[in-house]
Amino acid sequence: MPEFPTLLDVIAARERISPYLNRTPLHHYRALDELIGAEVWVKHENHHVMGAFKIRGALNVVAQLNEEEKSAGVVAASTGNFGQGLAYAAGIFGVDSVVVVPDGSNPGKVESMKRLGARIVFHGSAFDEAKEHADRLAKQEGRRYIHSANEAGLVPGTGTYTLEIMEDLPDVDVIIVPIGGGSGACGACIVSKALKPNVQVIGVQSDAAPAQYLSWKEGRVVEAPMETIAEGLATGSGYADTLEIMTELLDDFILVSETELDTAVVNHLTHTHNLTEHAGAASLAAAVKIKDRLAGKKVALIVSGGNITVDQLKSTLARNSSNGSS
Amino acid sequence: MPEFPTLLDVIAARERISPYLNRTPLHHYRALDELIGAEVWVKHENHHVMGAFKIRGALNVVAQLNEEEKSAGVVAASTGNFGQGLAYAAGIFGVDSVVVVPDGSNPGKVESMKRLGARIVFHGSAFDEAKEHADRLAKQEGRRYIHSANEAGLVPGTGTYTLEIMEDLPDVDVIIVPIGGGSGACGACIVSKALKPNVQVIGVQSDAAPAQYLSWKEGRVVEAPMETIAEGLATGSGYADTLEIMTELLDDFILVSETELDTAVVNHLTHTHNLTEHAGAASLAAAVKIKDRLAGKKVALIVSGGNITVDQLKSTLARNSSNGSS
Repeated sequence: MPEFPTLLDVIAARERISPYLNRTPLHHYRALDELIGAEVWVKHENHHVMGAFKIRGALNVVAQLNEEEKSAGVVAASTGNFGQGLAYAAGIFGVDSVVVVPDGSNPGKVESMKRLGARIVFHGSAFDEAKEHADRLAKQEGRRYIHSANEAGLVPGTGTYTLEIMEDLPDVDVIIVPIGGGSGACGACIVSKALKPNVQVIGVQSDAAPAQYLSWKEGRVVEAPMETIAEGLATGSGYADTLEIMTELLDDFILVSETELDTAVVNHLTHTHNLTEHAGAASLAAAVKIKDRLAGKKVALIVSGGNITVDQLKSTLARNSSNGSS
Repeated sequence: MPEFPTLLDVIAARERISPYLNRTPLHHYRALDELIGAEVWVKHENHHVMGAFKIRGALNVVAQLNEEEKSAGVVAASTGNFGQGLAYAAGIFGVDSVVVVPDGSNPGKVESMKRLGARIVFHGSAFDEAKEHADRLAKQEGRRYIHSANEAGLVPGTGTYTLEIMEDLPDVDVIIVPIGGGSGACGACIVSKALKPNVQVIGVQSDAAPAQYLSWKEGRVVEAPMETIAEGLATGSGYADTLEIMTELLDDFILVSETELDTAVVNHLTHTHNLTEHAGAASLAAAVKIKDRLAGKKVALIVSGGNITVDQLKSTLARNSSNGSS
């Protein structure tokens, strides 16, 4: 990425993608105010039809493919939400899509990709192996390979949710964003700081998969174990393009535990009546963890996705009860 | 109600209330297409900040109070969602509100009413007893009593969600609506039939609380036992005003069992990744039940609310597993 995307790129992305999307609500929940001691707003990216923010970046990328790329088709690797977004976007623009998913991926997400018209290829035990295979398929089949984070159109596309936040709550103080590949956090930084430089943007990962966190701390791409239940936060390595932006613009980066993620999923069920996946609930987990720093502020929590399976939900409720924290 | 509300009343209500609401999405879910064998769209009234469609009617009523009524305050009886809607609407217009709730009401809904600024009075063991007490309070305290169904502004307010459906899916064939007091179904009939007379509107209640169903069948207000888990569908008696409209315009009325409601809640978790209360899921339960009649049609399911407690959710998941139907 030679230069960072700018607010203008995000505004252009919105013109391009908004005909295909519902604007997601930014809701103020008084029950969360009481829990955190701040004025807490939730950006419901789980309210998209495929249940996650990834649709924004995918639409912005596919919409800008040239005719040759469109007719050759696309291929990507995904643990779930990006693949659904890509399949949906490809369907809208009449582009053939293949998604390589690691074995053992969230079956609800895989089924959804299929229904949205993607061909699914299972490969490897984790995202990075699936990614290598997608790269190979791109060369073999002449498809355009689309990376789920290092891809120029993604950050401007995902940045559109932060543009909506800044319109709906211009005096927001803090935005807390779950980080997987990092496109959401990068978009949040670029948009919010262009419009109001003193907005704080805070990223969140699980301490069971801290590769992006460690990369951000060390200022270089590093690898780390990846054992989180939150597949939307799980990457085994930092990514160069988003890391560069986060190094420059991200104000802080918080790790939360798997138990704190469980509690946050249950807190969303209880207080916002929303089904969230663990990655989507990570922003609430972080807010609870750093509540002393948020006291009295206006805080926007990104719920990046809601695609948890019923089995994952049942396990989460059971673990949460046995932790006595619900 | 001397005359039925008309489409013009609904259009006027939209002008009045839309500044205070997010437009809710109407999403097409391919997984539900496969389940039902039709083209299935879901109107997400659970995506309102207080989790239910009741906010629409409440806003339309409170916005039209005269200055004397506004300063005297309002009182209503509610099992939950109407009370939240009224508290929210009253807060926006600076009106003092009291909500009388039956003992044992959904604690999440009661907490939410309090947070939204209503004074809560517990009275009686069911809605109709709470209603009598609210009536008494209205007289004692000089407040404007607001009925959750027999109230002129409610149907035009709730009708606004059907106006949105007709804009988003003009060739809809069937709209399936959960029925508690009946304002949602009345609004759906008035709007859809004014715009496209051959749209079918089908109501749903639980066979464990069939008062509205029996009243519609017999063409007069009758009482019936009320033993459903779905508090949003629970009324012990039909209501004269909405019954008159439904008798004239509603195409059919379906009863579903409590087990079918449980399954529908789990189907929403699985296929739409939405948390729904049993009343909200009733439209999906009905669609599954009458799928043969819906084959190949475009069907809109109203998810009227999502305010289920975590305890209700856990019980639902447990019952559903033991039924082997998940």
